[in-house]
Amino acid sequence: MAKDSLQRRRDFALGSGAELFYDTPLEIIRGEGAYLYDKDGRRYVDMYNNVPCVGHANPAIVQAMAEQQAIVNVHSRYLHEGIVTFAERLAGLNHDGIESVVFSCSGTEAVEVAIQMARIATGKRGLICTDATYHGNSELVGAMSYLGCPPNQTGDIRSFPFPERYRPLKEGLSDDELCEAYLAEVAAAVDSLKAEGAGVAALIMCSIFANEGVPDIPPGFMSKVTDLIHGEGGLVIADEVQSGYARTGRWWGYEATQFRPDIVVTGKPMGNGLPISATAARKDFVDAFRAEKDYFNTCASTPLQAAVGMAVLDEIERLDLPSHVADVGTRLTSELASRVDQHSTIGDVRGSGLFISIEMIKEGGIKEPDAALTMLLSDRLKDKGFLVSYSGKFNNVLKIRPPLVFSHADAEDFLGAFDECMGELGE
Amino acid sequence: MAKDSLQRRRDFALGSGAELFYDTPLEIIRGEGAYLYDKDGRRYVDMYNNVPCVGHANPAIVQAMAEQQAIVNVHSRYLHEGIVTFAERLAGLNHDGIESVVFSCSGTEAVEVAIQMARIATGKRGLICTDATYHGNSELVGAMSYLGCPPNQTGDIRSFPFPERYRPLKEGLSDDELCEAYLAEVAAAVDSLKAEGAGVAALIMCSIFANEGVPDIPPGFMSKVTDLIHGEGGLVIADEVQSGYARTGRWWGYEATQFRPDIVVTGKPMGNGLPISATAARKDFVDAFRAEKDYFNTCASTPLQAAVGMAVLDEIERLDLPSHVADVGTRLTSELASRVDQHSTIGDVRGSGLFISIEMIKEGGIKEPDAALTMLLSDRLKDKGFLVSYSGKFNNVLKIRPPLVFSHADAEDFLGAFDECMGELGE
Repeated sequence: MAKDSLQRRRDFALGSGAELFYDTPLEIIRGEGAYLYDKDGRRYVDMYNNVPCVGHANPAIVQAMAEQQAIVNVHSRYLHEGIVTFAERLAGLNHDGIESVVFSCSGTEAVEVAIQMARIATGKRGLICTDATYHGNSELVGAMSYLGCPPNQTGDIRSFPFPERYRPLKEGLSDDELCEAYLAEVAAAVDSLKAEGAGVAALIMCSIFANEGVPDIPPGFMSKVTDLIHGEGGLVIADEVQSGYARTGRWWGYEATQFRPDIVVTGKPMGNGLPISATAARKDFVDAFRAEKDYFNTCASTPLQAAVGMAVLDEIERLDLPSHVADVGTRLTSELASRVDQHSTIGDVRGSGLFISIEMIKEGGIKEPDAALTMLLSDRLKDKGFLVSYSGKFNNVLKIRPPLVFSHADAEDFLGAFDECMGELGE
Repeated sequence: MAKDSLQRRRDFALGSGAELFYDTPLEIIRGEGAYLYDKDGRRYVDMYNNVPCVGHANPAIVQAMAEQQAIVNVHSRYLHEGIVTFAERLAGLNHDGIESVVFSCSGTEAVEVAIQMARIATGKRGLICTDATYHGNSELVGAMSYLGCPPNQTGDIRSFPFPERYRPLKEGLSDDELCEAYLAEVAAAVDSLKAEGAGVAALIMCSIFANEGVPDIPPGFMSKVTDLIHGEGGLVIADEVQSGYARTGRWWGYEATQFRPDIVVTGKPMGNGLPISATAARKDFVDAFRAEKDYFNTCASTPLQAAVGMAVLDEIERLDLPSHVADVGTRLTSELASRVDQHSTIGDVRGSGLFISIEMIKEGGIKEPDAALTMLLSDRLKDKGFLVSYSGKFNNVLKIRPPLVFSHADAEDFLGAFDECMGELGE
């Protein structure tokens, strides 16, 4: 009753259609580490939330947040040691082509900055992204978000089929040939932009293609596509909002998939729940952006963002989360991969650290996506106390992306629940 | 030395051109109430910052922030009582045409939502704004930000001269005629958009034209322009990022300037430094937006935004800040206005609550803006321990916009310092 009433109030106060997870939505009232608790005190293993990367209610983050807010939290047009040090640390965690940082409050805002920066740095307008991606919700960034939508191939934006080996662009090709086939799609997008007079300002990609379902990328694609774009005078933007901050077992997704982006966009996990995002690049790109745009973001570059952002970095380092993630992620992925041969409805298991995808398909061996089964699995797992979601071009990829403090024991528990669900569903 | 070094590090880490206030930038390390302290322990009366509306380091806000972050802070696709209650309170503070709320993290994001919502609700594309405004920094919203730039009169956006009596569009008109003259400018923008086939989706205005310098608006303009836009099937968006939250001595700027907007955008003061923003409107507009856009904002609509946002509302109510602001603001504005006759370089004093503008002009009686004197005054006042800034179409408007807890005693002290500065500058 109470929940129905809250849901009705929510439908009015936030508008109908404000998304809720699961057939019966959860009312979450408490969190700790990798666990969330509903209003009846029931514990769930959180295998979805990447924002609370160092754990729900992490006391070091609470302390840093409260201490700084009690000292001062003001905009960035005064000098403050904190935000400078935070920017230095963030740039320093990247490859040596990344020097300076523009802070903002959301992934969308950081992508806006990245695109504006790329256009200023290159003097060109054209943007290239994949055909099953999401980079944010502003008018500009939303136009590059093709989840479930047919790609727009006019104006300044082109999409190309994301690179994958499970459902390859063409069958029967060697890895090298498949890589070339995807590169040819990008080259076609480049040609189309050039024909329209836009040229190529940037290719933007999530470094692990998270929304595309963390595909198995044909080897060499990432560095070759970077060369291709550079050859056209464009820049490569790595959207690290999901893939960064130790998610893959390395600091950055681009280390896992082996390329060197020109601009790095970071977001969700940066503040463990405090809105923080950043766009990092070579200093001359940032300088050119600042000279042209006079960019100011009121609640960004603040002492609060700095204190909390550095506390998150400190916790990742203190807990050695990159190693932990690599360890737990590799073992869990390998365990799940061993289920592929046991269940004809598990098409593929792929992962990068603690971002793991389980591709659900229909019987019959033709890799037909099964979105209904994926949704059902997600609900059943919730009933057993494990929170996952789904993604991918066909909504048939079970998405596992827990807080980085997710443990080996949590992984073991999940495997038991997953096997139970598959059994109960007769899969 | 230390400061120079910090500034050099900042120029590298954040890029050259990241704006700093004052000829010699301040290094602020602590705040309390309406006061900021630099690294040498010097106290400044903060007369600029509207974000810490209930005071720097307000302990009630610190407590709400820390408590909620220690309990849970997670995204909005689970049910949570807090965000629903916060949305209900926020809608309830508005007129009865405002029912539902979309939360986001920055003013820019909230304006993006408002524009997308207006376009969906009206089925039209055209946008109208003033010729000396700022609504945010995304590609779309930035295109409507004309501070210091010539207005763009092509595509989907038109600007019109902001309404004012100090530098009227035409001399020698009665108030009614002047009002009609400005309305004719808006009508011309409407016609131009219709001729281009865009139609009018929305007129967006700060409810007190804050960036324009808080002009003295010809009486009746706001309600008449609202009628004009409604007559064309468009919506009126009130940008309350600066004018809302008791800044004018009323809850909303649109109450002070007397019109009824269809969509209300709120931002800066909502979180006293925590990034929170909101777009509020009639439920059917919000529903239509959600149905079309499937909008999700990771760090918005969270338990943390709700807890801190409601703590800010509680503090505003507990301290009865609307009354306090009206009281202090009226007295300070009146005192400053009495200086107009004493100094030929003070062209005009205007105010709405604790948003006060002092228009600085050159000798000679032709209202020639004096941006250099305004900047000099701002620096001198800083040296005396009072932080102000400047704005307006000609950068000649001294901008007074303190935390709402700014006191009568602070105002008295400021008047003394202001008189001293004017004397020292020989004005």
